[in-house]
Amino acid sequence: MNEIVKLAERIQKPDGRARRKASERLDNLTKPKGSLGKLEDLAIKVAGITGKLDPSLDNRYSLVFAGDHGVAEEGVSAYPQEVTVQMLANFIHEGAAVNVLGNLEGSEVMVIDVGVAAGDLPEKVLDRKVRFGTNNFVKGPAMSRDEAISSIMIGYEIVEDLADSGLDLLGLGDMGIANTTPSSAITSVLTGNAPQRVTGTGTGIDQESLANKVEVVERGIEVNNPDHEDPINVLSKVGGLEIGAITGGYLAGAANHVPLLVDGFITTSAALVAYAIEPLVAEYMVASHNSVEQGHMIALKHLGLSPLLDLNLRLGEGTGAVLAMNLIRASMAILNDMYTFAEAGVSTEEE
Amino acid sequence: MNEIVKLAERIQKPDGRARRKASERLDNLTKPKGSLGKLEDLAIKVAGITGKLDPSLDNRYSLVFAGDHGVAEEGVSAYPQEVTVQMLANFIHEGAAVNVLGNLEGSEVMVIDVGVAAGDLPEKVLDRKVRFGTNNFVKGPAMSRDEAISSIMIGYEIVEDLADSGLDLLGLGDMGIANTTPSSAITSVLTGNAPQRVTGTGTGIDQESLANKVEVVERGIEVNNPDHEDPINVLSKVGGLEIGAITGGYLAGAANHVPLLVDGFITTSAALVAYAIEPLVAEYMVASHNSVEQGHMIALKHLGLSPLLDLNLRLGEGTGAVLAMNLIRASMAILNDMYTFAEAGVSTEEE
Repeated sequence: MNEIVKLAERIQKPDGRARRKASERLDNLTKPKGSLGKLEDLAIKVAGITGKLDPSLDNRYSLVFAGDHGVAEEGVSAYPQEVTVQMLANFIHEGAAVNVLGNLEGSEVMVIDVGVAAGDLPEKVLDRKVRFGTNNFVKGPAMSRDEAISSIMIGYEIVEDLADSGLDLLGLGDMGIANTTPSSAITSVLTGNAPQRVTGTGTGIDQESLANKVEVVERGIEVNNPDHEDPINVLSKVGGLEIGAITGGYLAGAANHVPLLVDGFITTSAALVAYAIEPLVAEYMVASHNSVEQGHMIALKHLGLSPLLDLNLRLGEGTGAVLAMNLIRASMAILNDMYTFAEAGVSTEEE
Repeated sequence: MNEIVKLAERIQKPDGRARRKASERLDNLTKPKGSLGKLEDLAIKVAGITGKLDPSLDNRYSLVFAGDHGVAEEGVSAYPQEVTVQMLANFIHEGAAVNVLGNLEGSEVMVIDVGVAAGDLPEKVLDRKVRFGTNNFVKGPAMSRDEAISSIMIGYEIVEDLADSGLDLLGLGDMGIANTTPSSAITSVLTGNAPQRVTGTGTGIDQESLANKVEVVERGIEVNNPDHEDPINVLSKVGGLEIGAITGGYLAGAANHVPLLVDGFITTSAALVAYAIEPLVAEYMVASHNSVEQGHMIALKHLGLSPLLDLNLRLGEGTGAVLAMNLIRASMAILNDMYTFAEAGVSTEEE
């Protein structure tokens, strides 16, 4: 924990001066004040994050962190666990949704194994395995405290390395059969909502399986009694390895002044862990979309974030995050390329 | 009217076979069924509109139709009427929001004068002026029936010509100080909602001015008694020239199997007129965003459309429409470029 707290201390407040300058310019552009709504908020936010009114947005990355979950044996997912490793091969062959959307957006996709329950993964998967999947958290902690810290450090270091070589926009994504279950448990503990309120149908289970899933989350919390004031404790007891890595990715992105696109329910639960470690991290986050998963909006509200896209997505992988990158580029184009009233010779409001 | 009805008869049902083929393929792609939400609906819709699973989306256009409104003299807008013509110059110099977003998206912006209350417009503005602004509709009809028909025909012919030379995606936009007022009147009459429910603050008037604006809409409807079963009658009595041209643009786009991006409140009121002429036109429309303007969601519901972006926009010009083009391209990339379960060797749902 100590090393993570120390790293999190690197995260500073966004640049107030850049925010003010962006805001002033937006108010002078040839449009009614505020009429571009969230695009204007976004431009101000990105200016504050980067400290620049016209930052480079060229180096865009989508990182997909993968891990398996012992709790899958409780029948909480519509898919068998081997799908995690099959999907890694699909990512590598560029056949998955995040690849297709990444190609369209010009965002490079990287795949990192933090805890898949299988060996012999495709060569291009970055091997940072902490262990072969978590334990089933209805029977005890998902992982040890040290393993939770390791998973965070892995995400942190990968993003830190990218930032060193050039990173302008970051979308994080997840792959891991059953991982909406730990996400529900984390969201329940860190937002103080009952499991029933923050547990949904994931990739598509029926109502009977949902009732079982809610009970699994309840039992996981009861058995492990996670300490909501200690985010590493929560992550280790009812979390997941890819969730930890995403947490670390957000912390490193914020420390490096990179705008962070938050994807769906799993990445948002990781964002909750990061926020519990250092609340300033949310100032670097942009909520890309509102997932169908019912706990997602509750988690986003806890972070003070409002989604941009309304697409009923429920896929994960960072698909919503990569889709929203285009809106960040749009907001910065507005800020920089539109004419002011004076430049265009347009009259302002009457009176 | 007869000529418009005849043109509208060219609009056919979307291609059911292409829709089914798109739907089948989407269900076999490596993702849980339906997990890409509205992106999947969009891919099916575009397949049906174009009759192709992999249509060209290269030729993208944003047309901004401009007109002035006699009702502006009732103090319904925060801006003086001369802003309409000033903004046309701004469009031509590529300083406005729709230009900046059009450049980012690769959508060519064209500006057409259908009824600006000034002469001597910049050379690059396409001159299709029907008259110098409408009449103040609280004192009588905004325009004659023939003028309303002319405005529709102008939009129709421009889009028809574009379709002849290559048109794959179409965003229509508006410019005209005070034009949320006729849009509220049209929406009230064609959806059967009281003016108060469908009249908002437009580009940014205060609450006192809003009360006046509601009363202006009420008086306009009372004085002119538009016939809700005759859309041309509604357009001529309480509409606008740019609204008529946009109506015609939608009809021609649908007749030519072009996906139509609907923008904010003004273009949606034109969509209501087109829908009243030929309901099939809505099958060719995609709602890009939900405007802050309170009548917008009511109008979209009437058309059976659900917005993609949630950005609190209230600018017009076709800004939301051009932003959403990227999502259409994303949906078709998903349909065509993702691997199926069989291609990727990924297991499907259990059982």
